[in-house]
Order: sequence, then structure tokens, then C-alpha cells
Amino acid sequence: MTPPDLVTRFRAGDPRALARAITLAESGLDTARPVLRAARERPDRAVVLGVTGSPGSGKSTLTDAMIAALRARGERVAVLAVDPSSPYSGGAILGDRIRMLRHHGDPGVFVRSLASRGALGGLSPRTLPVLALLEGASFDWVILETVGVGQSEVDVAAVCDHTLLVVTPAGGDGVQAFKAGIMEIADVIAVNKADLPGADRTVRELLAAQGLGAHDEHTWFAPVRRTVAQKGEGVEALLEAVLAHRAHLGEEGLHARRAARAEFEVRTLVQERVLRRAREVSGDLYARVARGELDADAAADALLAG
Amino acid sequence: MTPPDLVTRFRAGDPRALARAITLAESGLDTARPVLRAARERPDRAVVLGVTGSPGSGKSTLTDAMIAALRARGERVAVLAVDPSSPYSGGAILGDRIRMLRHHGDPGVFVRSLASRGALGGLSPRTLPVLALLEGASFDWVILETVGVGQSEVDVAAVCDHTLLVVTPAGGDGVQAFKAGIMEIADVIAVNKADLPGADRTVRELLAAQGLGAHDEHTWFAPVRRTVAQKGEGVEALLEAVLAHRAHLGEEGLHARRAARAEFEVRTLVQERVLRRAREVSGDLYARVARGELDADAAADALLAG
Repeated sequence: MTPPDLVTRFRAGDPRALARAITLAESGLDTARPVLRAARERPDRAVVLGVTGSPGSGKSTLTDAMIAALRARGERVAVLAVDPSSPYSGGAILGDRIRMLRHHGDPGVFVRSLASRGALGGLSPRTLPVLALLEGASFDWVILETVGVGQSEVDVAAVCDHTLLVVTPAGGDGVQAFKAGIMEIADVIAVNKADLPGADRTVRELLAAQGLGAHDEHTWFAPVRRTVAQKGEGVEALLEAVLAHRAHLGEEGLHARRAARAEFEVRTLVQERVLRRAREVSGDLYARVARGELDADAAADALLAG
Repeated sequence: MTPPDLVTRFRAGDPRALARAITLAESGLDTARPVLRAARERPDRAVVLGVTGSPGSGKSTLTDAMIAALRARGERVAVLAVDPSSPYSGGAILGDRIRMLRHHGDPGVFVRSLASRGALGGLSPRTLPVLALLEGASFDWVILETVGVGQSEVDVAAVCDHTLLVVTPAGGDGVQAFKAGIMEIADVIAVNKADLPGADRTVRELLAAQGLGAHDEHTWFAPVRRTVAQKGEGVEALLEAVLAHRAHLGEEGLHARRAARAEFEVRTLVQERVLRRAREVSGDLYARVARGELDADAAADALLAG
């Protein structure tokens, strides 16, 4: 596929052109630029929904249930499953996602896993062009799901139109989310496994906690919806809550979210370049700072001067 | 206090000189450099222990119990309580730390809270010079405690000699830590609130989980210790486990940890400068990337060129 071909076929919704463009973008190759530009220029773009929540909350099962519900509505869905994983293990926890393979062969569903992670523990900057390609391809919804660990939770909220926080009634998940400040990144909250004891209390606590925060007449209170993802229960109401948030954002709000995604991408690219530069500089630099022979500020200057 | 005075009095262990030096370092003032250099040149430096774990695990109570146990041994202790908090709320969860105030008036205990956070959600780069000052002051132990949210957990492990992970028997904390890859950053693990049901199982699971990972004859398996922080139980054994890890690290390992701290500081300083530069550039930059008018790579180049 020549580059002009790739753009034409991407615009026409050819899944092979999309797959090829993603591969180019993931590799950070310059040849991805024209198709990436085409994706960003597209006026009617997908609903970009981030799904976050602690491990074990059932994010993957809920994503799978949302795919099924969206397909029943005739919507085309792409899922980007990102696993920044532990910065220490470098592994990928993709087991739960295997269930999504049942959509394999449905041309209205596209699932891609990225095991990449950023140099700083969160999302890799290469996730963003992939997300932009999916957003500007012929999908109605793009769901970005991570394993929900550390920085990646915050990152997901920074790069999506809507952030869905998944909690469970078990272990005071809701209260922990509140304490940890994670709840504040949620636009919509699913109390999943709502057939377990304590679901009502969790819903009440989540609603009460939101009322405690600073708010005025423009504040969006994240709707709290009960779901039982394994049975597909409550998923319709959850999707409606996401669309309600989209209406609340409006065109202006969506433009701002897209600019925030671009900002995230540019910033992480800058950081990666600086880190690469740091590796090229004498390996003794940090030891000299540690011994008091060189100021940290002077070392930072040296790295930025290149 | 003139700068040479400050260095002399800092070296002599004057707590007012330390407090003044910290204020200068927190503000990022150049006048902090001489005293910071003096702190880093000091040969006998403190044990730097990071304390992490999910909210509600009892980190502050355990830190308080460790202070009491260390004071009983005649050791001088500094605590740096860092609350990077939510990048969204910007608030500080310091309530639990109020108990530490009971050590107020004991000249062998120094407690400082920092509500600062880094531009990227983790520890602020200004935390590091403060940590270096405490490490090079006349303390035997420096305990760095965070609220244990997101990136700050990973950061704590990156900047301390030893990382203590605090879990509880409740809610499958141990298994969650393992799933989330947090356990891998632990050098020592405390199963706190060990008088609650399930403590034995949690200890067994944590030990078993470590055996599953890749290891050879040099691998350090994090000792798992039962504690009941509110009664001071198990704290002696916990401190011994930290000292065992210190012996395992040896001089070379400690030098490497100090270089890692310096690296963290320099890298975060670089990132902050780049972000500042980005704010100075046209505010339209990111919107242009979002609309496909400018490549993200080109935007990153523009920011780095300054």
C-alpha cells in the first residue's frame, strides 16, 4: 500500500488500511503522518470512552457487555486495551480480555491490545496516535480500557471524552476511590457486580460523596449505575449515562477534550526525547549529583541544552 | 542567617538551620545549593525508608509506631509526609497524621508535611532536595510517607533506600497488590491490622506470590511481618526486616539507590522546565495538533527547540 493509497483506503473504512496505519503509528514511523492527519481532519468522530477502576472490578467483562449492547444498536465499536502494567514487571495482564475474542469475525468490532507503556509508568505516547486513528476511522464508539494501575488511571481520564469508573460493592471500593481522589476523574460510575451484598450502600456512598465536593449549577455529578456485567444487566442505562455526559460537554467541551489528548501526546513525546538525551549523556551524571559534586538544576540545564 | 552560617549550623545539627534550609529548598531557591551540597557530601547518612500502601491500610499509624520504637532505641527520626493527593482536587489528606504531633517537643523527632505534587501527578521534584537535606542532617532514620495513590506509590519506591508496603487482611489487599504489580516494589511487607480475620491467609498468599516470580540465588524476597500498629505490636520485627534489607543492599546498593534519587530529581526538573516552556508557547499549539494541522512530533520539536 503506497501512502496515498493508505489514506484513501483508510477514509473508505478499509479495516486492513486501519490495521496497517496502526502498525505504522505504533512504531512511530513518519509514514503514519498523512493517515494520522486524515483521521484528525475527519469531522464526525467517535465517542471516546475511557474505562478505569481497580483490578478485579470487572472492567473487561463490562467492556465486553458494552460491545454487545452497542452492536445490538447497530453501532460500530473499537476497543483499545492498553496494559501499561507494572513498570517493574513489564508484563501484560490480558487474560480477562480473551473473552472479547468472541467478537472476532464481526466486522463492526475491532479489538487491539497494546502492551506498551510510557517511560514514566503511564500510557505510552504511542497510544495516542493509535487512539486518534480509531477515533477518526469509521467507528461510532472507541473504548479505551487499561488495567487501572497507578498513573495509567489518571492518564486515561486525560485522554478520553468520557471516563467510566468501575467499582464493586466489595471491600469498600467506592469509599477507597473517594479517598484516593480517583472518583473525581469519573464522568460516569458503574457499581458492577451489583448483585453482591452492599451494592445499595455503595451507590448511596458514591452519591453522597459527590454532594460533599465543591459544586455550582454547572457541576456535572457523575451518574451512578448498577451493572451486572456478566449478565449484561444495567448496560443500556450505563450507555445512556455516557451519552448524557456527551450532551453536557457539547461541541466546545469535545474540542477541549481533543486538544487535551493532543497535549498529552506532545508532552509525552517531549519527555521521551529528554529521557533519551539523558541516556546519551555521561552515565556518571546522576552519581555526581548524588555525591553533591553537581547541582540538580545544573544537571537539568545540561540535559536540556542537549 | 547568612549562607555560610547556614551550612555551618546545618552541619552542627541545628534544627532551625535545617528548617530554614528546607524552606529554601522547597522554594527552589539557589541559596539552598550550598547547604544541599553539604547534606549530600555527608558520609554517614540516614536510613531512608519509604512507606506505601492503599488508603486505609494504616500507614500513618504504623509510621507513628515506628517513630516510638526507634526513639526507644535512641535513634533520631525525621518523617517527611508527602501528599501529592489527587491531581484534580489538589487537596491534602493529613488528618491521620495529626497523631504524630504527640512527638512535638521531642528534639529527636522531626516531622514535615509537604502538600506539593509534581506536574505529572507524582512526587514534586522539590520533594527530593528536602529528602536529601533530611538524609544528610543528623538523623538516623528518614521515613517518607505518601497517601499511596497512583504514581506517588511508584515514585516513593524510586527515591528511597527501602520500600515498606503496608497491606491489611481485609478485602484481599495482598492479592490486589500482587495483581497491580505494586508488590514488586516492596522490600519489606507489613500485614497491618493483623488482629483482624484473614491475616494468616494474607501472609501465606504474599509469601506464595513472591515464590511464583522469577528469582535466582541473589533475589531478595520481601519479608512479610504481622503488625498491629495501634498497639505497637510487631514493629520491632519490622524494623529488623528493614535493616536486613539494608545489609543485603550493602554499600554499593546504597550508592545506586542514591544515584537513582538524583536521577529522579534531575528528570522531574527537566520535565517541569519543558512544561513551563509549553505554556509559554502559543496556547493554540495543542488545538492545531488535535485538528490535524500540525504533527505531534513537529510540535514536540518546537517545544524542545525552546
